Amino acid sequence: MTAIALLTDFGLQDPYVGILKGVMMGIAPQARLIDISHAVPPGDIRWGAWQLWSAHAYFPAGTVFLAVVDPGVGSSRRPMALAAGGQYFVGPDNGLLSWVAGTSCQRVVLDRPCWHLPVVSQSFHGRDIFAPVAARLAAGMALSELGSAVDAMHDLPWPEVEVTTSALIGEVLLWDHFGNLITNLRGEQLVHWAGVKSLRFEVGGQVVDGLSSCYAEVSPQALLAIIGSTGLLEISLRDGSARQKLGAEVGWRVFVSAT
Amino acid sequence: MTAIALLTDFGLQDPYVGILKGVMMGIAPQARLIDISHAVPPGDIRWGAWQLWSAHAYFPAGTVFLAVVDPGVGSSRRPMALAAGGQYFVGPDNGLLSWVAGTSCQRVVLDRPCWHLPVVSQSFHGRDIFAPVAARLAAGMALSELGSAVDAMHDLPWPEVEVTTSALIGEVLLWDHFGNLITNLRGEQLVHWAGVKSLRFEVGGQVVDGLSSCYAEVSPQALLAIIGSTGLLEISLRDGSARQKLGAEVGWRVFVSAT
Amino acid sequence: MTAIALLTDFGLQDPYVGILKGVMMGIAPQARLIDISHAVPPGDIRWGAWQLWSAHAYFPAGTVFLAVVDPGVGSSRRPMALAAGGQYFVGPDNGLLSWVAGTSCQRVVLDRPCWHLPVVSQSFHGRDIFAPVAARLAAGMALSELGSAVDAMHDLPWPEVEVTTSALIGEVLLWDHFGNLITNLRGEQLVHWAGVKSLRFEVGGQVVDGLSSCYAEVSPQALLAIIGSTGLLEISLRDGSARQKLGAEVGWRVFVSAT
Repeated sequence: MTAIALLTDFGLQDPYVGILKGVMMGIAPQARLIDISHAVPPGDIRWGAWQLWSAHAYFPAGTVFLAVVDPGVGSSRRPMALAAGGQYFVGPDNGLLSWVAGTSCQRVVLDRPCWHLPVVSQSFHGRDIFAPVAARLAAGMALSELGSAVDAMHDLPWPEVEVTTSALIGEVLLWDHFGNLITNLRGEQLVHWAGVKSLRFEVGGQVVDGLSSCYAEVSPQALLAIIGSTGLLEISLRDGSARQKLGAEVGWRVFVSAT
Repeated sequence: MTAIALLTDFGLQDPYVGILKGVMMGIAPQARLIDISHAVPPGDIRWGAWQLWSAHAYFPAGTVFLAVVDPGVGSSRRPMALAAGGQYFVGPDNGLLSWVAGTSCQRVVLDRPCWHLPVVSQSFHGRDIFAPVAARLAAGMALSELGSAVDAMHDLPWPEVEVTTSALIGEVLLWDHFGNLITNLRGEQLVHWAGVKSLRFEVGGQVVDGLSSCYAEVSPQALLAIIGSTGLLEISLRDGSARQKLGAEVGWRVFVSAT
Repeated sequence: MTAIALLTDFGLQDPYVGILKGVMMGIAPQARLIDISHAVPPGDIRWGAWQLWSAHAYFPAGTVFLAVVDPGVGSSRRPMALAAGGQYFVGPDNGLLSWVAGTSCQRVVLDRPCWHLPVVSQSFHGRDIFAPVAARLAAGMALSELGSAVDAMHDLPWPEVEVTTSALIGEVLLWDHFGNLITNLRGEQLVHWAGVKSLRFEVGGQVVDGLSSCYAEVSPQALLAIIGSTGLLEISLRDGSARQKLGAEVGWRVFVSAT
């Protein structure tokens, strides 16, 4: 009973996600279908890459990830499948898969129409190419059967943290449903940089002193800085939304200093 | 492992969809439960009929569809189940099922309380009648066991396309999450009507010249006309929402001419 | 094939729910994962308690409920699992589980790290403690293995109905997706109190005469009072949203008199 984990920007308003699942049920009736999220902002490849990266390690070995955030559908961007860390990833080669691809993986371009739906549209490769391929992987087909091997793939660089003598300067990568601002600063990086000093954070003109280890450490409606559940620095508001309080946007700079 | 595919207007805010699934798990523990969508606008039978129509063909033979958009629940509208094209459909007889019912199907009215929950409310037949019946079908019960055969059913006419000597006049049927405007004009109808001529589209005072085959064919933020993934003409905006750009409403007229 | 039913305030925007499922798939690959809802307003324990209470009885015996509305995560509130009515419930001991716990149940505090993820964060016990424990229950582990027995648990009182000689005074508990106002007044209580008299309702300055048994009994856009599908009094609007029409808020008083 292999799991297929789905990540798309299709939303849940339309029948599109259900259609992907219907196609896969027909090819791999035993597969378990698990949603990661379908609420990636439309066409936002980086947001999707982050979701896939933050979730994949919690799924068992052998899981097939079907990831479709595909603004270039029908153009020359390649459909791809790859193996990395004992799991499989299927989706467009537009950077979406690059944070999970690692270095030592096997990659194929999906150039064998016999494994796709008989009619392939130019606007819905999720249904016509990616879902059938993901289902065949889940049903046990070898990756090498599904297409020709390729080496290079589109890379999406991790947004760089600027390091000065007195500060780390990161950015707001995205936010979540609770209004937590998730940054590109990794917990280990902060700890390594600060050593025994204590940290100070500034974002949107607000200052937060010290790293908290849980929300209850600060007063209700106070801002806090915390290493979130995916290992990244988050700026949060206890019992509220930091995003809303600060009016934060993706890309806002986050300054870290040590005292 | 039969699949039960769910389509409702219940939304995902409340426990109602989970309750349907709990009821079905108790009756058909082996069935696979797959969501098509629960975001049909409340009570919008035509929107629901379109979702069911656009999704059903991608599900395997034997799939049981549980469809509940039921503003007349508790009134005289009949609860129904039918077989068509090797699949089963369960829901209210209010037009919701009419676009998938086809012509040669077997239909029953759900008039046998022994197959429903012991207590049937007047406001939640999804839970009390439709879910138990869908689960029994998935568990292998014959359709003819579930109720008395009926011939007639409520028909929801497909919104008619006006054909003049110089134009086809269709309408915006609905939109999707990406802001694509989905019309009642079928791709084959356009092709047949235009022959070798090229097409011109007008909607909301905006003109689109020619049919595109993928989004990337036009510039970012440009409107395009495309035969969408369900075979219907769609008016879209590359990297954006046509609905938002045009302020479009359901029922807006779409003019097609040939040059 | 035990079912695990999930209820959280995580929303469906982020990968968090998918991560819970990935963790559980690794521990209990056979378990069926069913969503009740992930749209409990962030941190709203009472709303979550209501959803769990209204849904649980429709799930089969043996179902494991994973419920996470956990504003105090990382603080001293205890992680808990309990058995009641042939089902299992796993979540924080903050009142969320109290409406389903009943009186005669077996309870443990989750104090055995060997059954949790190897690294436990202070901000995501859903992933690190509750999901692994729910999966182990679904895979057949005894409740008593999972932690030390406890007697007391945090109680969330049902909002009291005020009873005067001339009126019952309840309140709006919450609303649903359709805009139905769900109150704390139980159907049986109303019937018992009114006897043969007929009922009159007042909420937000609007009067509704009589109890309806289905929406179609009143005119479109008229308010009605109905015993909803969970046995509670609801104030609804036919073909519309009572919440929106009245601008209702949680906690609004609902007056019931008999004539």
